[in-house]
Amino acid sequence: MPANAVDAAAMERLILSAPFHRWLGLRLVELADEHIDIAMPWREELVSDPVARYTHGGAIATLVDLAADYAIAAKLGRGVPTIDLRVDFHKAAQPGEELIGRGRIIKLGRTVATAEALVRKADGSLIASGRGVYLTSAG
Amino acid sequence: MPANAVDAAAMERLILSAPFHRWLGLRLVELADEHIDIAMPWREELVSDPVARYTHGGAIATLVDLAADYAIAAKLGRGVPTIDLRVDFHKAAQPGEELIGRGRIIKLGRTVATAEALVRKADGSLIASGRGVYLTSAG
Amino acid sequence: MPANAVDAAAMERLILSAPFHRWLGLRLVELADEHIDIAMPWREELVSDPVARYTHGGAIATLVDLAADYAIAAKLGRGVPTIDLRVDFHKAAQPGEELIGRGRIIKLGRTVATAEALVRKADGSLIASGRGVYLTSAG
Amino acid sequence: MPANAVDAAAMERLILSAPFHRWLGLRLVELADEHIDIAMPWREELVSDPVARYTHGGAIATLVDLAADYAIAAKLGRGVPTIDLRVDFHKAAQPGEELIGRGRIIKLGRTVATAEALVRKADGSLIASGRGVYLTSAG
Repeated sequence: MPANAVDAAAMERLILSAPFHRWLGLRLVELADEHIDIAMPWREELVSDPVARYTHGGAIATLVDLAADYAIAAKLGRGVPTIDLRVDFHKAAQPGEELIGRGRIIKLGRTVATAEALVRKADGSLIASGRGVYLTSAG
Repeated sequence: MPANAVDAAAMERLILSAPFHRWLGLRLVELADEHIDIAMPWREELVSDPVARYTHGGAIATLVDLAADYAIAAKLGRGVPTIDLRVDFHKAAQPGEELIGRGRIIKLGRTVATAEALVRKADGSLIASGRGVYLTSAG
Repeated sequence: MPANAVDAAAMERLILSAPFHRWLGLRLVELADEHIDIAMPWREELVSDPVARYTHGGAIATLVDLAADYAIAAKLGRGVPTIDLRVDFHKAAQPGEELIGRGRIIKLGRTVATAEALVRKADGSLIASGRGVYLTSAG
Repeated sequence: MPANAVDAAAMERLILSAPFHRWLGLRLVELADEHIDIAMPWREELVSDPVARYTHGGAIATLVDLAADYAIAAKLGRGVPTIDLRVDFHKAAQPGEELIGRGRIIKLGRTVATAEALVRKADGSLIASGRGVYLTSAG
Protein backbone atom coordinates (compact mmCIF):
# COMPACT_ATOMS: atom_id res chain seq x y z
CA MET A 1 0.00 0.00 0.00
CA PRO A 2 1.15 3.56 -0.69
CA ALA A 3 1.71 5.96 2.23
CA ASN A 4 -1.31 7.89 3.50
CA ALA A 5 -2.11 11.16 1.78
CA VAL A 6 -3.48 12.71 4.98
CA ASP A 7 -2.44 12.72 8.63
CA ALA A 8 -4.67 11.85 11.59
CA ALA A 9 -5.80 15.43 12.23
CA ALA A 10 -6.87 15.92 8.62
CA MET A 11 -8.57 12.52 8.60
CA GLU A 12 -10.55 13.36 11.73
CA ARG A 13 -11.67 16.64 10.14
CA LEU A 14 -12.72 14.71 7.02
CA ILE A 15 -14.69 12.17 9.06
CA LEU A 16 -16.41 14.81 11.17
CA SER A 17 -17.33 16.98 8.19
CA ALA A 18 -20.35 14.68 7.74
CA PRO A 19 -23.34 15.66 9.92
CA PHE A 20 -24.28 11.97 10.28
CA HIS A 21 -20.82 11.16 11.63
CA ARG A 22 -21.04 13.99 14.14
CA TRP A 23 -24.44 12.77 15.28
CA LEU A 24 -23.01 9.26 15.66
CA GLY A 25 -20.16 10.68 17.74
CA LEU A 26 -17.46 8.99 15.67
CA ARG A 27 -13.87 9.22 16.84
CA LEU A 28 -10.67 8.43 14.96
CA VAL A 29 -8.74 5.92 17.10
CA GLU A 30 -5.79 5.13 14.85
CA LEU A 31 -4.66 5.93 11.33
CA ALA A 32 -1.91 3.59 10.13
CA ASP A 33 -0.61 2.81 6.63
CA GLU A 34 -2.32 -0.58 6.64
CA HIS A 35 -5.55 0.19 8.51
CA ILE A 36 -7.79 2.78 10.10
CA ASP A 37 -9.70 2.35 13.39
CA ILE A 38 -12.84 4.39 13.99
CA ALA A 39 -14.90 4.24 17.20
CA MET A 40 -18.68 4.57 17.34
CA PRO A 41 -20.03 5.07 20.87
CA TRP A 42 -23.33 3.60 21.97
CA ARG A 43 -26.33 5.84 22.06
CA GLU A 44 -29.91 5.18 23.07
CA GLU A 45 -31.30 6.15 19.65
CA LEU A 46 -29.37 3.28 18.02
CA VAL A 47 -31.24 0.58 19.91
CA SER A 48 -33.06 -1.85 17.68
CA ASP A 49 -35.10 -4.39 19.60
CA PRO A 50 -37.02 -2.79 22.50
CA VAL A 51 -36.61 -5.88 24.70
CA ALA A 52 -33.20 -7.32 23.78
CA ARG A 53 -32.00 -3.73 23.25
CA TYR A 54 -29.11 -4.56 20.91
CA THR A 55 -27.63 -2.00 18.54
CA HIS A 56 -29.38 -1.64 15.17
CA GLY A 57 -27.82 -3.44 12.23
CA GLY A 58 -28.13 -0.29 10.15
CA ALA A 59 -25.81 1.54 12.54
CA ILE A 60 -23.34 -1.33 12.37
CA ALA A 61 -23.56 -1.41 8.56
CA THR A 62 -22.81 2.31 8.61
CA LEU A 63 -19.63 1.66 10.61
CA VAL A 64 -18.53 -1.11 8.21
CA ASP A 65 -19.11 1.20 5.25
CA LEU A 66 -17.29 4.17 6.64
CA ALA A 67 -14.32 2.28 8.07
CA ALA A 68 -13.77 0.68 4.66
CA ASP A 69 -14.35 4.00 2.90
CA TYR A 70 -11.87 5.93 5.04
CA ALA A 71 -9.21 3.24 4.60
CA ILE A 72 -9.33 4.25 0.93
CA ALA A 73 -9.76 7.95 1.73
CA ALA A 74 -6.50 7.82 3.68
CA LYS A 75 -4.69 7.07 0.42
CA LEU A 76 -6.59 9.50 -1.79
CA GLY A 77 -7.11 12.39 0.62
CA ARG A 78 -10.87 12.40 -0.02
CA GLY A 79 -13.92 10.22 0.64
CA VAL A 80 -15.12 7.93 -2.12
CA PRO A 81 -18.70 7.04 -3.18
CA THR A 82 -19.82 3.56 -2.17
CA ILE A 83 -20.83 1.44 -5.17
CA ASP A 84 -21.97 -1.52 -3.09
CA LEU A 85 -21.67 -2.85 0.41
CA ARG A 86 -21.79 -6.30 2.02
CA VAL A 87 -22.18 -6.75 5.76
CA ASP A 88 -22.21 -9.97 7.80
CA PHE A 89 -23.63 -9.78 11.30
CA HIS A 90 -21.94 -12.16 13.72
CA LYS A 91 -23.11 -11.17 17.19
CA ALA A 92 -25.47 -8.64 18.77
CA ALA A 93 -23.95 -5.49 20.28
CA GLN A 94 -25.37 -4.60 23.68
CA PRO A 95 -26.31 -1.21 25.17
CA GLY A 96 -23.37 0.84 26.37
CA GLU A 97 -20.83 -0.91 24.21
CA GLU A 98 -18.58 1.24 22.05
CA LEU A 99 -17.77 -0.40 18.73
CA ILE A 100 -14.50 -0.14 16.81
CA GLY A 101 -14.50 -0.46 13.04
CA ARG A 102 -11.18 -1.39 11.47
CA GLY A 103 -10.96 -0.71 7.76
CA ARG A 104 -8.35 -2.15 5.39
CA ILE A 105 -7.86 -1.93 1.63
CA ILE A 106 -8.06 -5.21 -0.30
CA LYS A 107 -7.42 -3.77 -3.76
CA LEU A 108 -6.82 -0.15 -4.71
CA GLY A 109 -7.61 0.40 -8.37
CA ARG A 110 -7.86 3.50 -10.51
CA THR A 111 -11.56 3.07 -11.27
CA VAL A 112 -12.77 1.09 -8.26
CA ALA A 113 -11.31 -0.09 -4.98
CA THR A 114 -12.35 -2.88 -2.62
CA ALA A 115 -11.95 -2.49 1.14
CA GLU A 116 -13.06 -4.55 4.11
CA ALA A 117 -13.92 -3.78 7.72
CA LEU A 118 -14.20 -5.67 10.99
CA VAL A 119 -16.37 -4.31 13.79
CA ARG A 120 -15.33 -5.33 17.28
CA LYS A 121 -16.27 -4.54 20.84
CA ALA A 122 -13.66 -3.12 23.22
CA ASP A 123 -12.93 -6.67 24.44
CA GLY A 124 -12.03 -7.67 20.89
CA SER A 125 -15.04 -9.89 20.17
CA LEU A 126 -16.28 -9.72 16.61
CA ILE A 127 -19.69 -8.08 16.04
CA ALA A 128 -19.76 -7.75 12.27
CA SER A 129 -17.59 -7.76 9.18
CA GLY A 130 -17.97 -6.81 5.57
CA ARG A 131 -16.61 -5.20 2.48
CA GLY A 132 -17.47 -2.62 -0.07
CA VAL A 133 -16.57 -1.49 -3.55
CA TYR A 134 -15.87 2.22 -3.95
CA LEU A 135 -15.56 4.49 -6.95
CA THR A 136 -12.03 5.87 -7.00
CA SER A 137 -12.18 7.50 -10.44
CA ALA A 138 -14.59 10.18 -9.17
CA GLY A 139 -13.40 13.48 -7.87
CA MET B 1 -46.56 -16.19 -0.55
CA PRO B 2 -48.70 -16.96 2.50
CA ALA B 3 -51.06 -14.28 3.83
CA ASN B 4 -49.66 -11.76 6.28
CA ALA B 5 -49.69 -12.73 9.96
CA VAL B 6 -50.18 -9.11 11.07
CA ASP B 7 -52.26 -6.18 9.89
CA ALA B 8 -51.00 -2.67 9.14
CA ALA B 9 -51.63 -1.32 12.64
CA ALA B 10 -49.71 -4.17 14.28
CA MET B 11 -46.90 -3.83 11.74
CA GLU B 12 -46.57 -0.11 12.43
CA ARG B 13 -46.35 -0.82 16.16
CA LEU B 14 -43.67 -3.44 15.47
CA ILE B 15 -41.65 -1.05 13.32
CA LEU B 16 -41.92 1.80 15.81
CA SER B 17 -41.00 -0.37 18.79
CA ALA B 18 -37.36 0.18 17.78
CA PRO B 19 -35.89 3.42 19.16
CA PHE B 20 -33.74 3.79 16.00
CA HIS B 21 -36.84 3.61 13.81
CA ARG B 22 -38.57 6.27 15.89
CA TRP B 23 -35.53 8.52 15.62
CA LEU B 24 -35.52 7.98 11.85
CA GLY B 25 -39.22 8.89 11.75
CA LEU B 26 -40.20 5.79 9.78
CA ARG B 27 -43.75 5.47 8.52
CA LEU B 28 -45.58 2.44 7.20
CA VAL B 29 -46.97 3.41 3.78
CA GLU B 30 -48.44 0.11 2.61
CA LEU B 31 -48.59 -3.47 3.77
CA ALA B 32 -49.63 -5.87 1.01
CA ASP B 33 -49.30 -9.64 0.68
CA GLU B 34 -46.49 -9.26 -1.86
CA HIS B 35 -44.64 -6.23 -0.53
CA ILE B 36 -44.26 -3.66 2.20
CA ASP B 37 -43.51 0.05 1.68
CA ILE B 38 -41.81 2.02 4.44
CA ALA B 39 -41.04 5.75 4.23
CA MET B 40 -37.96 7.39 5.72
CA PRO B 41 -38.16 11.19 5.82
CA TRP B 42 -35.10 13.36 5.29
CA ARG B 43 -33.43 14.82 8.31
CA GLU B 44 -30.42 17.09 8.64
CA GLU B 45 -28.50 14.59 10.78
CA LEU B 46 -28.49 12.07 7.92
CA VAL B 47 -26.45 14.27 5.62
CA SER B 48 -23.20 12.72 4.50
CA ASP B 49 -21.10 15.05 2.40
CA PRO B 50 -21.02 18.61 3.83
CA VAL B 51 -20.89 20.18 0.35
CA ALA B 52 -22.97 17.88 -1.87
CA ARG B 53 -25.21 17.24 1.16
CA TYR B 54 -26.59 13.90 -0.03
CA THR B 55 -28.10 11.38 2.38
CA HIS B 56 -25.62 9.02 4.07
CA GLY B 57 -25.28 5.53 2.59
CA GLY B 58 -25.57 4.06 6.07
CA ALA B 59 -29.07 5.49 6.42
CA ILE B 60 -30.01 4.11 3.02
CA ALA B 61 -28.54 0.70 3.91
CA THR B 62 -30.67 0.81 7.06
CA LEU B 63 -33.80 1.33 4.95
CA VAL B 64 -32.86 -1.56 2.62
CA ASP B 65 -32.31 -3.82 5.61
CA LEU B 66 -35.51 -3.00 7.43
CA ALA B 67 -37.78 -3.01 4.37
CA ALA B 68 -36.50 -6.51 3.53
CA ASP B 69 -36.73 -7.58 7.17
CA TYR B 70 -40.33 -6.41 7.62
CA ALA B 71 -41.40 -8.09 4.38
CA ILE B 72 -40.50 -11.31 6.20
CA ALA B 73 -41.84 -10.09 9.54
CA ALA B 74 -45.24 -9.59 7.89
CA LYS B 75 -45.42 -13.35 7.37
CA LEU B 76 -43.99 -14.40 10.75
CA GLY B 77 -45.47 -11.72 13.00
CA ARG B 78 -42.04 -10.84 14.39
CA GLY B 79 -38.80 -9.23 13.24
CA VAL B 80 -35.96 -11.51 12.19
CA PRO B 81 -32.19 -11.16 12.79
CA THR B 82 -30.18 -10.12 9.74
CA ILE B 83 -27.51 -12.65 8.82
CA ASP B 84 -26.05 -10.60 6.00
CA LEU B 85 -26.93 -7.63 3.86
CA ARG B 86 -26.02 -6.44 0.39
CA VAL B 87 -26.71 -2.90 -0.77
CA ASP B 88 -26.10 -1.31 -4.18
CA PHE B 89 -26.12 2.47 -4.36
CA HIS B 90 -27.41 3.81 -7.65
CA LYS B 91 -27.94 7.53 -7.18
CA ALA B 92 -27.42 10.13 -4.45
CA ALA B 93 -30.45 11.22 -2.42
CA GLN B 94 -30.71 14.96 -1.94
CA PRO B 95 -31.72 17.01 1.12
CA GLY B 96 -35.42 17.14 1.77
CA GLU B 97 -36.22 14.00 -0.17
CA GLU B 98 -38.28 11.35 1.56
CA LEU B 99 -37.25 7.84 0.57
CA ILE B 100 -39.54 4.83 0.19
CA GLY B 101 -38.17 1.35 0.76
CA ARG B 102 -40.16 -1.48 -0.82
CA GLY B 103 -39.39 -4.90 0.62
CA ARG B 104 -40.29 -8.22 -1.01
CA ILE B 105 -39.56 -11.83 -0.10
CA ILE B 106 -37.48 -13.82 -2.58
CA LYS B 107 -37.46 -17.12 -0.66
CA LEU B 108 -39.08 -17.88 2.67
CA GLY B 109 -37.41 -20.87 4.29
CA ARG B 110 -37.72 -22.42 7.72
CA THR B 111 -34.11 -21.73 8.70
CA VAL B 112 -33.29 -18.68 6.57
CA ALA B 113 -35.17 -16.35 4.26
CA THR B 114 -33.95 -14.05 1.49
CA ALA B 115 -35.67 -10.73 0.84
CA GLU B 116 -34.89 -7.76 -1.37
CA ALA B 117 -35.61 -4.06 -1.22
CA LEU B 118 -35.71 -1.13 -3.62
CA VAL B 119 -35.29 2.41 -2.33
CA ARG B 120 -36.94 5.11 -4.41
CA LYS B 121 -37.61 8.82 -4.21
CA ALA B 122 -41.19 10.09 -4.31
CA ASP B 123 -40.82 10.60 -8.10
CA GLY B 124 -40.05 6.89 -8.48
CA SER B 125 -36.37 7.22 -9.35
CA LEU B 126 -34.19 4.46 -7.96
CA ILE B 127 -31.72 5.42 -5.22
CA ALA B 128 -30.53 2.03 -4.00
CA SER B 129 -31.39 -1.65 -4.01
CA GLY B 130 -30.25 -4.71 -2.18
CA ARG B 131 -31.05 -7.93 -0.43
CA GLY B 132 -30.47 -9.69 2.82
CA VAL B 133 -30.55 -13.12 4.37
CA TYR B 134 -32.48 -13.40 7.62
CA LEU B 135 -32.66 -16.06 10.30
CA THR B 136 -36.22 -17.37 10.43
CA SER B 137 -35.59 -20.32 12.77
CA ALA B 138 -34.99 -17.95 15.72
CA GLY B 139 -37.76 -16.91 17.99
CA MET C 1 -34.36 0.64 -20.74
CA PRO C 2 -32.91 1.46 -24.17
CA ALA C 3 -33.46 -0.97 -27.06
CA ASN C 4 -31.02 -3.82 -27.47
CA ALA C 5 -27.88 -3.15 -29.50
CA VAL C 6 -27.72 -6.72 -30.77
CA ASP C 7 -30.24 -9.26 -32.04
CA ALA C 8 -30.64 -12.84 -30.80
CA ALA C 9 -28.31 -14.34 -33.39
CA ALA C 10 -25.51 -11.92 -32.55
CA MET C 11 -26.11 -12.45 -28.82
CA GLU C 12 -25.85 -16.21 -29.19
CA ARG C 13 -22.58 -15.81 -31.06
CA LEU C 14 -21.31 -13.54 -28.29
CA ILE C 15 -22.29 -16.03 -25.59
CA LEU C 16 -20.77 -18.99 -27.39
CA SER C 17 -17.53 -17.17 -28.16
CA ALA C 18 -16.43 -18.15 -24.63
CA PRO C 19 -14.94 -21.66 -24.42
CA PHE C 20 -16.39 -22.07 -20.92
CA HIS C 21 -19.88 -21.31 -22.22
CA ARG C 22 -19.48 -23.84 -25.00
CA TRP C 23 -18.33 -26.47 -22.52
CA LEU C 24 -21.36 -25.64 -20.36
CA GLY C 25 -23.60 -26.05 -23.42
CA LEU C 26 -25.33 -22.70 -22.88
CA ARG C 27 -28.27 -21.83 -25.09
CA LEU C 28 -29.98 -18.47 -25.62
CA VAL C 29 -33.67 -19.00 -24.90
CA GLU C 30 -34.99 -15.47 -25.24
CA LEU C 31 -33.63 -11.99 -25.76
CA ALA C 32 -36.15 -9.28 -24.90
CA ASP C 33 -35.72 -5.58 -24.17
CA GLU C 34 -36.31 -6.13 -20.46
CA HIS C 35 -34.62 -9.50 -19.89
CA ILE C 36 -32.51 -12.28 -21.30
CA ASP C 37 -33.04 -16.01 -20.65
CA ILE C 38 -30.10 -18.38 -20.95
CA ALA C 39 -30.36 -22.15 -20.46
CA MET C 40 -27.65 -24.31 -18.89
CA PRO C 41 -28.21 -28.04 -19.36
CA TRP C 42 -27.25 -30.56 -16.72
CA ARG C 43 -24.04 -32.45 -17.16
CA GLU C 44 -22.43 -35.12 -15.01
CA GLU C 45 -19.25 -33.07 -14.44
CA LEU C 46 -21.28 -30.36 -12.66
CA VAL C 47 -22.35 -32.65 -9.83
CA SER C 48 -21.27 -31.46 -6.41
CA ASP C 49 -22.16 -33.90 -3.65
CA PRO C 50 -21.45 -37.52 -4.65
CA VAL C 51 -24.42 -38.84 -2.67
CA ALA C 52 -27.07 -36.10 -2.98
CA ARG C 53 -25.74 -35.40 -6.51
CA TYR C 54 -27.03 -31.85 -6.73
CA THR C 55 -25.53 -29.33 -9.15
CA HIS C 56 -22.45 -27.46 -7.90
CA GLY C 57 -23.01 -23.95 -6.55
CA GLY C 58 -20.11 -22.70 -8.64
CA ALA C 59 -21.93 -23.68 -11.80
CA ILE C 60 -25.06 -21.94 -10.58
CA ALA C 61 -23.05 -18.84 -9.62
CA THR C 62 -21.65 -18.86 -13.15
CA LEU C 63 -25.17 -18.81 -14.57
CA VAL C 64 -26.19 -15.92 -12.29
CA ASP C 65 -23.11 -13.98 -13.34
CA LEU C 66 -23.49 -14.50 -17.06
CA ALA C 67 -27.26 -13.95 -17.21
CA ALA C 68 -26.77 -10.60 -15.45
CA ASP C 69 -23.76 -9.79 -17.60
CA TYR C 70 -25.52 -10.49 -20.90
CA ALA C 71 -28.55 -8.43 -19.85
CA ILE C 72 -26.11 -5.51 -19.90
CA ALA C 73 -24.27 -6.79 -22.97
CA ALA C 74 -27.57 -6.71 -24.88
CA LYS C 75 -27.57 -2.94 -24.47
CA LEU C 76 -23.88 -2.33 -25.12
CA GLY C 77 -23.21 -4.93 -27.77
CA ARG C 78 -20.29 -6.39 -25.80
CA GLY C 79 -19.68 -8.32 -22.61
CA VAL C 80 -18.66 -6.37 -19.51
CA PRO C 81 -16.14 -7.28 -16.78
CA THR C 82 -17.69 -8.35 -13.48
CA ILE C 83 -16.62 -6.14 -10.57
CA ASP C 84 -18.42 -8.17 -7.93
CA LEU C 85 -21.07 -10.83 -7.67
CA ARG C 86 -23.60 -11.88 -5.05
CA VAL C 87 -25.42 -15.19 -5.22
CA ASP C 88 -28.11 -16.59 -2.92
CA PHE C 89 -28.77 -20.32 -3.10
CA HIS C 90 -32.39 -21.23 -2.42
CA LYS C 91 -32.78 -24.86 -3.37
CA ALA C 92 -30.60 -27.70 -4.66
CA ALA C 93 -30.76 -28.51 -8.39
CA GLN C 94 -30.99 -32.20 -9.13
CA PRO C 95 -29.32 -34.32 -11.84
CA GLY C 96 -30.85 -34.01 -15.29
CA GLU C 97 -32.45 -30.64 -14.61
CA GLU C 98 -31.82 -27.87 -17.10
CA LEU C 99 -31.57 -24.46 -15.44
CA ILE C 100 -32.74 -21.16 -16.90
CA GLY C 101 -31.05 -17.95 -15.83
CA ARG C 102 -33.04 -14.77 -16.37
CA GLY C 103 -30.98 -11.60 -16.30
CA ARG C 104 -32.36 -8.07 -15.88
CA ILE C 105 -30.70 -4.68 -15.54
CA ILE C 106 -31.33 -2.81 -12.30
CA LYS C 107 -29.32 0.30 -13.13
CA LEU C 108 -27.35 1.03 -16.28
CA GLY C 109 -24.71 3.64 -15.60
CA ARG C 110 -21.84 4.99 -17.66
CA THR C 111 -19.13 3.72 -15.31
CA VAL C 112 -20.84 0.76 -13.64
CA ALA C 113 -24.10 -1.12 -14.04
CA THR C 114 -26.01 -3.36 -11.66
CA ALA C 115 -27.95 -6.35 -12.94
CA GLU C 116 -29.74 -9.23 -11.28
CA ALA C 117 -30.53 -12.80 -12.23
CA LEU C 118 -32.96 -15.50 -11.17
CA VAL C 119 -32.15 -19.15 -11.80
CA ARG C 120 -35.15 -21.45 -12.18
CA LYS C 121 -35.84 -25.02 -13.12
CA ALA C 122 -38.09 -25.79 -16.11
CA ASP C 123 -41.05 -26.09 -13.71
CA GLY C 124 -40.45 -22.51 -12.57
CA SER C 125 -39.19 -23.27 -9.07
CA LEU C 126 -36.45 -20.93 -7.87
CA ILE C 127 -32.96 -22.41 -7.45
CA ALA C 128 -30.85 -19.30 -6.92
CA SER C 129 -30.83 -15.54 -7.36
CA GLY C 130 -28.28 -12.82 -7.22
CA ARG C 131 -26.83 -9.68 -8.64
CA GLY C 132 -23.59 -8.22 -9.84
CA VAL C 133 -21.91 -4.94 -10.54
CA TYR C 134 -20.26 -4.63 -13.93
CA LEU C 135 -17.78 -2.18 -15.41
CA THR C 136 -19.46 -0.41 -18.31
CA SER C 137 -16.78 2.22 -18.91
CA ALA C 138 -14.34 -0.39 -20.23
CA GLY C 139 -14.10 -1.32 -23.87
CA MET D 1 -10.45 -21.73 16.16
CA PRO D 2 -10.90 -25.36 17.20
CA ALA D 3 -8.51 -28.02 15.84
CA ASN D 4 -9.38 -29.61 12.52
CA ALA D 5 -11.69 -32.63 12.58
CA VAL D 6 -10.01 -34.20 9.54
CA ASP D 7 -6.43 -34.61 8.34
CA ALA D 8 -5.11 -33.67 4.91
CA ALA D 9 -5.68 -37.10 3.37
CA ALA D 10 -9.32 -37.17 4.48
CA MET D 11 -9.81 -33.59 3.32
CA GLU D 12 -8.43 -34.37 -0.11
CA ARG D 13 -10.78 -37.32 -0.39
CA LEU D 14 -13.68 -35.06 0.63
CA ILE D 15 -12.75 -32.43 -1.95
CA LEU D 16 -12.32 -34.96 -4.73
CA SER D 17 -15.57 -36.76 -3.95
CA ALA D 18 -17.29 -34.04 -6.03
CA PRO D 19 -17.27 -34.75 -9.78
CA PHE D 20 -17.01 -31.02 -10.50
CA HIS D 21 -13.87 -30.78 -8.37
CA ARG D 22 -12.32 -33.74 -10.17
CA TRP D 23 -13.09 -32.15 -13.50
CA LEU D 24 -11.50 -28.90 -12.28
CA GLY D 25 -8.43 -30.86 -11.21
CA LEU D 26 -8.41 -29.39 -7.70
CA ARG D 27 -5.49 -30.19 -5.44
CA LEU D 28 -5.17 -29.69 -1.68
CA VAL D 29 -2.03 -27.64 -1.12
CA GLU D 30 -2.14 -27.10 2.64
CA LEU D 31 -4.51 -27.79 5.49
CA ALA D 32 -3.67 -25.76 8.60
CA ASP D 33 -5.73 -24.92 11.67
CA GLU D 34 -6.21 -21.34 10.49
CA HIS D 35 -6.55 -21.81 6.73
CA ILE D 36 -6.81 -24.17 3.82
CA ASP D 37 -5.11 -23.73 0.42
CA ILE D 38 -6.63 -25.35 -2.63
CA ALA D 39 -5.10 -25.16 -6.11
CA MET D 40 -7.11 -24.97 -9.33
CA PRO D 41 -5.02 -25.54 -12.47
CA TRP D 42 -5.71 -23.72 -15.69
CA ARG D 43 -7.60 -25.54 -18.39
CA GLU D 44 -8.64 -24.48 -21.85
CA GLU D 45 -12.36 -25.00 -21.14
CA LEU D 46 -12.26 -22.31 -18.42
CA VAL D 47 -11.37 -19.53 -20.82
CA SER D 48 -13.89 -16.70 -20.88
CA ASP D 49 -13.06 -14.07 -23.47
CA PRO D 50 -11.95 -15.60 -26.79
CA VAL D 51 -9.51 -12.76 -27.47
CA ALA D 52 -8.20 -11.74 -24.04
CA ARG D 53 -8.46 -15.42 -23.03
CA TYR D 54 -8.66 -14.81 -19.28
CA THR D 55 -10.15 -17.36 -16.90
CA HIS D 56 -13.94 -17.23 -16.49
CA GLY D 57 -15.26 -15.44 -13.39
CA GLY D 58 -17.57 -18.37 -12.71
CA ALA D 59 -14.59 -20.66 -12.29
CA ILE D 60 -12.96 -18.15 -9.96
CA ALA D 61 -16.21 -17.77 -7.99
CA THR D 62 -16.26 -21.55 -7.66
CA LEU D 63 -12.78 -21.48 -6.12
CA VAL D 64 -13.77 -18.72 -3.68
CA ASP D 65 -16.84 -20.72 -2.65
CA LEU D 66 -15.10 -24.02 -2.14
CA ALA D 67 -12.02 -22.63 -0.37
CA ALA D 68 -14.31 -20.89 2.13
CA ASP D 69 -16.53 -23.97 2.39
CA TYR D 70 -13.66 -26.36 3.08
CA ALA D 71 -12.19 -24.04 5.72
CA ILE D 72 -15.41 -24.75 7.61
CA ALA D 73 -15.51 -28.41 6.54
CA ALA D 74 -12.09 -28.87 8.14
CA LYS D 75 -13.68 -28.13 11.51
CA LEU D 76 -16.89 -30.11 11.00
CA GLY D 77 -15.57 -33.06 9.02
CA ARG D 78 -18.17 -32.51 6.28
CA GLY D 79 -18.98 -30.00 3.57
CA VAL D 80 -21.63 -27.36 4.29
CA PRO D 81 -24.34 -25.92 2.01
CA THR D 82 -23.65 -22.41 0.77
CA ILE D 83 -26.39 -19.95 1.76
CA ASP D 84 -24.91 -17.03 -0.11
CA LEU D 85 -21.68 -16.00 -1.75
CA ARG D 86 -19.94 -12.72 -2.51
CA VAL D 87 -17.02 -12.46 -4.89
CA ASP D 88 -14.93 -9.45 -5.83
CA PHE D 89 -12.85 -9.69 -8.99
CA HIS D 90 -9.61 -7.75 -8.79
CA LYS D 91 -7.52 -8.82 -11.78
CA ALA D 92 -7.87 -11.11 -14.79
CA ALA D 93 -6.21 -14.53 -14.60
CA GLN D 94 -4.32 -15.48 -17.75
CA PRO D 95 -4.06 -18.79 -19.60
CA GLY D 96 -1.76 -21.33 -18.02
CA GLU D 97 -1.89 -19.79 -14.57
CA GLU D 98 -2.72 -22.07 -11.66
CA LEU D 99 -4.79 -20.30 -9.01
CA ILE D 100 -4.60 -20.87 -5.25
CA GLY D 101 -7.65 -20.25 -3.11
CA ARG D 102 -6.98 -19.68 0.59
CA GLY D 103 -10.04 -20.13 2.81
CA ARG D 104 -10.35 -18.88 6.37
CA ILE D 105 -13.21 -18.88 8.86
CA ILE D 106 -14.45 -15.48 10.03
CA LYS D 107 -17.14 -16.74 12.41
CA LEU D 108 -18.08 -20.33 13.18
CA GLY D 109 -21.61 -20.50 14.55
CA ARG D 110 -23.92 -23.39 15.31
CA THR D 111 -26.53 -22.40 12.72
CA VAL D 112 -24.45 -20.48 10.17
CA ALA D 113 -20.78 -19.75 9.62
CA THR D 114 -19.04 -17.03 7.64
CA ALA D 115 -15.78 -17.73 5.83
CA GLU D 116 -13.66 -15.77 3.39
CA ALA D 117 -11.28 -16.66 0.60
CA LEU D 118 -8.49 -15.01 -1.33
CA VAL D 119 -7.56 -16.25 -4.80
CA ARG D 120 -3.95 -15.65 -5.84
CA LYS D 121 -1.65 -16.56 -8.67
CA ALA D 122 1.54 -18.50 -7.95
CA ASP D 123 3.44 -15.17 -7.79
CA GLY D 124 1.16 -14.04 -4.96
CA SER D 125 -0.78 -11.40 -6.88
CA LEU D 126 -4.44 -11.14 -5.93
CA ILE D 127 -7.00 -12.24 -8.53
CA ALA D 128 -10.21 -12.29 -6.49
CA SER D 129 -11.55 -12.36 -2.95
CA GLY D 130 -14.85 -12.98 -1.32
CA ARG D 131 -16.87 -14.53 1.42
CA GLY D 132 -19.81 -16.77 1.98
CA VAL D 133 -22.32 -17.76 4.59
CA TYR D 134 -22.76 -21.49 5.11
CA LEU D 135 -25.36 -23.56 6.91
CA THR D 136 -23.65 -25.43 9.73
CA SER D 137 -26.79 -26.76 11.42
CA ALA D 138 -27.43 -29.16 8.51
CA GLY D 139 -26.18 -32.73 8.50
